[in-house]
Amino acid sequence: MNIPKTISLDHGSGGLASQHLIKDLFLKYLSNPVLDGLEDCAILEQYNGRIAMSTDSYVVDPLFFPGGNIGELAVNGTINDLAMRGARPVALSLGLIIEEGFSAVDLERIIAAIAKATELAGVDIVTGDTKVVPRGKADKIFINTTGVGVVPDKVNISGKNAQPGNVVLVSGTIGDHGITIMANQAGLAIDGDIQSDTMALHPLVDAVLQQSGDSIRVLRDPTRGGLATSLCEIASASSVSITIEEDKLPIRPPVNAACELIGLDPLYLANEGKCIVICDQEKAEATLGCMRSMDQGEEAAIIGRVIDDKPGRVTLTTRIGGSRLIEPLTGHPLPRIC
Amino acid sequence: MNIPKTISLDHGSGGLASQHLIKDLFLKYLSNPVLDGLEDCAILEQYNGRIAMSTDSYVVDPLFFPGGNIGELAVNGTINDLAMRGARPVALSLGLIIEEGFSAVDLERIIAAIAKATELAGVDIVTGDTKVVPRGKADKIFINTTGVGVVPDKVNISGKNAQPGNVVLVSGTIGDHGITIMANQAGLAIDGDIQSDTMALHPLVDAVLQQSGDSIRVLRDPTRGGLATSLCEIASASSVSITIEEDKLPIRPPVNAACELIGLDPLYLANEGKCIVICDQEKAEATLGCMRSMDQGEEAAIIGRVIDDKPGRVTLTTRIGGSRLIEPLTGHPLPRIC
Repeated sequence: MNIPKTISLDHGSGGLASQHLIKDLFLKYLSNPVLDGLEDCAILEQYNGRIAMSTDSYVVDPLFFPGGNIGELAVNGTINDLAMRGARPVALSLGLIIEEGFSAVDLERIIAAIAKATELAGVDIVTGDTKVVPRGKADKIFINTTGVGVVPDKVNISGKNAQPGNVVLVSGTIGDHGITIMANQAGLAIDGDIQSDTMALHPLVDAVLQQSGDSIRVLRDPTRGGLATSLCEIASASSVSITIEEDKLPIRPPVNAACELIGLDPLYLANEGKCIVICDQEKAEATLGCMRSMDQGEEAAIIGRVIDDKPGRVTLTTRIGGSRLIEPLTGHPLPRIC
Repeated sequence: MNIPKTISLDHGSGGLASQHLIKDLFLKYLSNPVLDGLEDCAILEQYNGRIAMSTDSYVVDPLFFPGGNIGELAVNGTINDLAMRGARPVALSLGLIIEEGFSAVDLERIIAAIAKATELAGVDIVTGDTKVVPRGKADKIFINTTGVGVVPDKVNISGKNAQPGNVVLVSGTIGDHGITIMANQAGLAIDGDIQSDTMALHPLVDAVLQQSGDSIRVLRDPTRGGLATSLCEIASASSVSITIEEDKLPIRPPVNAACELIGLDPLYLANEGKCIVICDQEKAEATLGCMRSMDQGEEAAIIGRVIDDKPGRVTLTTRIGGSRLIEPLTGHPLPRIC
């Protein structure tokens, strides 16, 4: 590889060193006919359906963590945002901001993870950009991915569509990603197999939409702010109330234990491979069965329902039968979760 | 405004403070029906044409400079990348990475500039993301914009399409943006009215394509690496040689003077509102006339031609009749030009 051990300012100059980085590293892993064109702008196809678009920047610290690294997080996170409107992802852009002196080996690990995640998801990186800033002006690497997807004609999924009587499901255990990153940041060694749940959810969404069609009202991946904040946002956007049951929430025992140790509520922890599904009551069991039949939803559960109460209100029925008001996240104990 | 004087980590948490920032600041300036939906993913229309996609991160230092700021640069730069393939821009995403403690007043100025630039260009910000990193982990603010555009059926513009006999034009004076930023970074007060040329070029591209149709072979905005590097890339991608004439290059006298003072070559300076146009010889004069009739091309000029010589070779005929080999940028005197 025509690349030294560390990334220098030259690699972001747009000149010869930039070209080496692109050809010797990025194309080695991410090659596809569109990207290989090396134009400043990618040209895709004409698509039969509405175009969906979503963007996220990833600043997670540490870059490498149990279950993944910033690279696959950046791919899966943006794909999931597309999937949450029922869009089939078709292309991703990749924008890198790298600190001068960043390890070329670490960069290669991250690009390899991006390549693996895009391959798994069946989506290409079609265009990209790399900037390098002087030492101390950024922290190692920040990644932006923006995704383009296509929404089939009849699909109409939105956070505004929840209706009283609907059932609330979650596709698996909550808190895994958030507790993994927080424990790493805090330097805590946690017992048990805790790792990030980062994964692409569009196959699960495809299957659920195939199964239950327009009975699916809302899809939402509870990332920053966790399940609690996402439910509050949905309740507010749909002008409904949502109630969930504590003993129905799928939470891994080591996640629960770690939360107690650090003093965190798993309801507010970020997830990177889970989604909330809100659907008509008559399709709830079939939707649950469909989710559980998929790799991405083996531990799916019905956790609550939408009710006709104060708009925006979310409540939790506790294990001992009490009721607790759930509010959106107000502060954040540690930044750079994703 | 429900926002304090500086941006805090809470504003990037995805919780209540993030919502305040979005509703009280971003929507105040950027409101449109799609963005106002506040979904994690925007749904646009179905488009009649191929979808184009381009991304750029902006890390310019200083954030505010004569002629503009990082906000309009981020809008115009990405719109221009779309336009350089003949795409009509239809939507932009906006990804912000903000350093804890960044001035809310400066953020508002930047968002206002983004709003003005998008309004001028007739393109909406349809989706966004904001991350805040701790003090010292980024330098004030970095912005990613990703653009989606639509390429009309017959348009086929690519850096690979230059053919011997074609004529090379540039839409106006070169080096204005680069010298403005570099002089600012170096703390030099330069005489004369030097300012960034940041502007959106799609109206110019529309007019030129209307005028000269498929006689237009290549469009390229010579940003990082300047005119020299862009011409080398085109010559290489098209396997042709390009020759340009020094005395035909439009350069403002104060830019030339400043370049001599700092010891820079205007051929390698970044431009943010100029494009190279390569077209068939028989349409060159008509294309030039069309460009000069537009606000974005008043100082357009024919600067050279494509010849059948060593592939990738670019030469400059100097004022005194000599010939100088033009190579792509290899190093970069100062980073963070855009």
